[in-house]
Order: sequence, then C-alpha cells, then structure tokens
Amino acid sequence: MLLQVIFYIAIAAEAMTAALAAGRRKMDWFGVCVLACVTALGGGTMRDTLLGHYPLTWVANPYLLLICCGAALFTIALARFMDALKWPFLLLDALGLVVFTIIGCNIAIELGLSPIIIIVSGLVTGIVGGILRDVLCNDVPLVFSSELYATVAIVSGVLYYYGLQWGLPHDLVVVGVIVIGFSLRVAAIILKLEMPKFVYDKELR
Amino acid sequence: MLLQVIFYIAIAAEAMTAALAAGRRKMDWFGVCVLACVTALGGGTMRDTLLGHYPLTWVANPYLLLICCGAALFTIALARFMDALKWPFLLLDALGLVVFTIIGCNIAIELGLSPIIIIVSGLVTGIVGGILRDVLCNDVPLVFSSELYATVAIVSGVLYYYGLQWGLPHDLVVVGVIVIGFSLRVAAIILKLEMPKFVYDKELR
Amino acid sequence: MLLQVIFYIAIAAEAMTAALAAGRRKMDWFGVCVLACVTALGGGTMRDTLLGHYPLTWVANPYLLLICCGAALFTIALARFMDALKWPFLLLDALGLVVFTIIGCNIAIELGLSPIIIIVSGLVTGIVGGILRDVLCNDVPLVFSSELYATVAIVSGVLYYYGLQWGLPHDLVVVGVIVIGFSLRVAAIILKLEMPKFVYDKELR
Repeated sequence: MLLQVIFYIAIAAEAMTAALAAGRRKMDWFGVCVLACVTALGGGTMRDTLLGHYPLTWVANPYLLLICCGAALFTIALARFMDALKWPFLLLDALGLVVFTIIGCNIAIELGLSPIIIIVSGLVTGIVGGILRDVLCNDVPLVFSSELYATVAIVSGVLYYYGLQWGLPHDLVVVGVIVIGFSLRVAAIILKLEMPKFVYDKELR
Repeated sequence: MLLQVIFYIAIAAEAMTAALAAGRRKMDWFGVCVLACVTALGGGTMRDTLLGHYPLTWVANPYLLLICCGAALFTIALARFMDALKWPFLLLDALGLVVFTIIGCNIAIELGLSPIIIIVSGLVTGIVGGILRDVLCNDVPLVFSSELYATVAIVSGVLYYYGLQWGLPHDLVVVGVIVIGFSLRVAAIILKLEMPKFVYDKELR
Repeated sequence: MLLQVIFYIAIAAEAMTAALAAGRRKMDWFGVCVLACVTALGGGTMRDTLLGHYPLTWVANPYLLLICCGAALFTIALARFMDALKWPFLLLDALGLVVFTIIGCNIAIELGLSPIIIIVSGLVTGIVGGILRDVLCNDVPLVFSSELYATVAIVSGVLYYYGLQWGLPHDLVVVGVIVIGFSLRVAAIILKLEMPKFVYDKELR
C-alpha cells in the first residue's frame, strides 16, 4: 500500500531532521536517538493517548523504534553531506506531514468519532512530533510561528474527510489529498506564506 | 446548572489569557488557537489521561475546541482593549480555578478514588493548563513561584471533599467552596500573598 | 522484598534532588513538592500511560505522593547540609536508576510485550522523571548530554531480560543487574564516561 511505504519514508525523514536538531544542541548519540523517536513517533503517540487507542503503534511494531534510531545514527555518519540535502528533506517532510495527517484521520474515523475530532486527530498526528522536539530542545515550537504547516494538516484533513463523505473512491481521495497538501506546503515554503501573526507586548499580570 | 455555566465562562476566559500569552511570543493565529485550547482544556485532559478516564471531555464535546478558538480569535480582534480588562480576567480566572478544581474532584469521586487522589485530581484540573501554556511558551511555570494559586486549588479541593463527607447539601458545598476559594485567590492577588520560596544556589552535580 | 525497599529509598532520593533543582529556580514550597512528585513518579507515570497500564502506581498507592512531598520539604529544611551529601545522593540516584529500570521491565514482561518494548519500558521508567524535571525547569534535558545514564538503564534492562530468558533464578538476576548497573553508573561518574556527542552547527531550514 502506497500510504504505508510513504509512512516509513516519512518516519525516517522526520527522525533525520530531528537528529540534526539534536546535533545543534550538542546532544550525545543516545539523545539523538531519543529525539528522533519522539519526533517521528510522538504525533501518533499523543493522538493514541488522547483517544485511548491502545496499544500504541510503536508498542505493536517495535521495529519502528529501530528505524528511527537507525535513521538518526545514519544522519550522524553523513552529517557533513546534509547541507546538500536541504530540499529533499523539506520535500519528504511535506509528504510526511500529509501522510501522517491522513493516517491520523483514519484512526479517528475507525473509532467512529465526530468530524471535528477526525480533523484534530489528523492535525495532532501531523504536528505534535515537531512540538515535542522543540520543547525538548528548549525552543518555542516552530509550528506556532513559521510558514504554513499546521494549516496544511488542517486543509488535508478537511479535504480527506469530505472527500470520503462525498463518496469518492478511497484511493482517489488519498492521492488527491497528498497532491494538494504537498503542493500547498511546498508553495508555502517557496513563497514564504505565513498565517498572520498576533503580536501583543503588554504584560496582563 | 450553575457549575456548567461557570465552566464555559472559565474555559473562554482561560483561552483568552492564553491568547495574550501567545501574542507576547508573536505566535501566528494557529499558534494562538492551539495555545488557547491547550491552556483551557489541558488540565482536564491531563487528569483524564492520568486516571484512564476516557473519552476526554473535548473528544466527547468537540464544540469546546470551537469555544476556545473563538475566544482566542476574539482576543486578537480586541487586543488593544485588553489592558482595561485586566481585573475582569483575573476575577474570571480565579472563578475558573475553583470551578475546574470542583469538577476535577467530582470525576475522581465518581471513579471511587481515595481522598488524596480526589484532591490531586482537582489540583491537576485547576493548574496543569497553565503549566502546559508556560512550557510551550518556554517559561518556567508561573504557578511554581507566584501568588497563591495552587494553594487555592488544594484548599478548595479539601473543603469540597470534606464538605460532602460531612453530609452537607451538595449545592451548599459548591457555593461555599466557590465563595471561599474565590475570596482566597483575590486576597492573594491584592495582598501579594505567596508561599515561602526555596532558594538554593549551589550545583549539586 | 529488597526491590521494594530500594524503590522507596530511590523515590525519596529522586524527590530530594528534584527539590534542590527547584530551589535553584527559586520555586515556592508548592513548586518544590510538584517538581519532586513529577521527578520521582514521572517515569512510571509515562510508562503506564504509554502502555495503557491503569491505574497508575501513585493513584493506587497515594502515599507515594506524601513520601515525595515529605522528602522535598525535608530537603528545604536541611538545604545547607546538602553540599556534604553530594556523594550519597549520587549513589542513591544510581541505585534508583537501576531499580526503576528493573521495575519498568517487569511491568512490560507481565503485560506480555516484546523484548524491545520491555527494555524501552525500563528505560522510560528510569529516565523520564529527570527529563520532565528539566523541561519544567526550562533546561535541555541533562540525560541527553551528560555522563552515561540512559546507557546504564539500557544495559541493565538488556541484562535483566536476557538473565531471565536464560533461566537464571530471579533473585540472582536482580542482584546481579543491580551490582553491574550500579557499578557502571558510578564508574561513569568517576571516570566521566560519556557517549560520543553529535555536534552540528548549521541550520537546515
């Protein structure tokens, strides 16, 4: 299944970008592996914990942890070539965002949850890994202030849910959502599309 | 039911103060909404996750997410008037703290848990939202070092539990706890009542 | 049971080191108690939440919270003697790390989980409390960059699991793992053994 293949590629890509973030904090190899696992699998873990959906994906399939650690250690070995790989990473990350979102929506649909929660489930799956990475690196999460990212997850989730609701064939919806979501994210990076910022500089208390 | 009405008002008030915190970090509109939801609903979410009490409140009632996002976006629109609203916010926040605590205690009582856990359940419901807000904003949580706040939740929880234990009518206990807890919190703000601080400035390791 | 006794001592020791960390952030007495509970009980809480293993240890045994708060307040009272206690703390912490790991492995074994997850369960139990402490103190977690710590948990978990697999008597395995894990940690502190660091100083995005 296409979704499954892209899922594994995206997991590895997320783990690799997390490894680079760990390297910027001068973490040791263990820290690099933990940050890779948390970033790549944290979104799904948070979703399943919030929905009470056990066992977690990586508890059922522990080799996912090995993929993350392997990708992280591979990144350490190849760190000096990473500069040249900026664009491939951004593209894989964009693909992963959309695929994670679709998978998150699917879980909520299977659990028979309401439309809002289906979209939130996709959103959580898509973005929480990066939020946990930034918290562990002691940063304000990037996703709250940079180019369209969460918006891509929300748009993808809405299109996926309503695509299925309108009775379109499942494979068509998946491919369509991937194409649209991926294009939107890439356009956001190139054109520096951002949500409007809210700037408030008074202390309330 | 009075408790229910105050609950919704408190959720909105929490979301609005979180939106201002997001504005101080120059987050975009999406970040503002996420921070509002996490702050307003995070305490109950943490409580239910710790107690294994599923489904979570906002999964069962997804419109709570819409209330939070609506209150957050409303705050962006009205940001320049927020200065004048400092006191109304502080009062609503105080009211919310006590009501969240009572609701948290109720959940633990329904689950048949022990007195300590009932009070901890109220405490977690009351304060964890603010802790998560501060972690996502990259601050040391305010609740660990400012005017009496957690103490108000603990006192409210103890009074509520023993009020019910002593066989007092439920409505009387609720109103009594709200009056006492609210007054204590307001007194703490005005008189700058604080817990003693523990200051230790040596590195142990 | 020896494991149980060391468990309580280790809980208290973790709570006391957390109290000192709270003191360095000038937290109030409430903050000190919360940080103590989160640090001492956070690893087991995270493990049980990830594995869906309810009720949590401290919900079933709420007096654990009292032990943590008591140890934390005791630390405040005796803070000026703490300097002299650096080594006892480091030793108790090392002992606690191995015992927490063994207990975490046991839970996963009882749940019939796979070898990787058994070792991850021990690891999470051993190190997550300290990670949560560092996040709440607004630090990058120490465990990602200091002397061998997580490695000790992983080695202890692997030895424990394979010791039992090889049919060795349970008590022998427990004692053996404690001796080896404790020695490894103490050696790491004295000899400043560290995992290799990954240093990467370019921005990928």
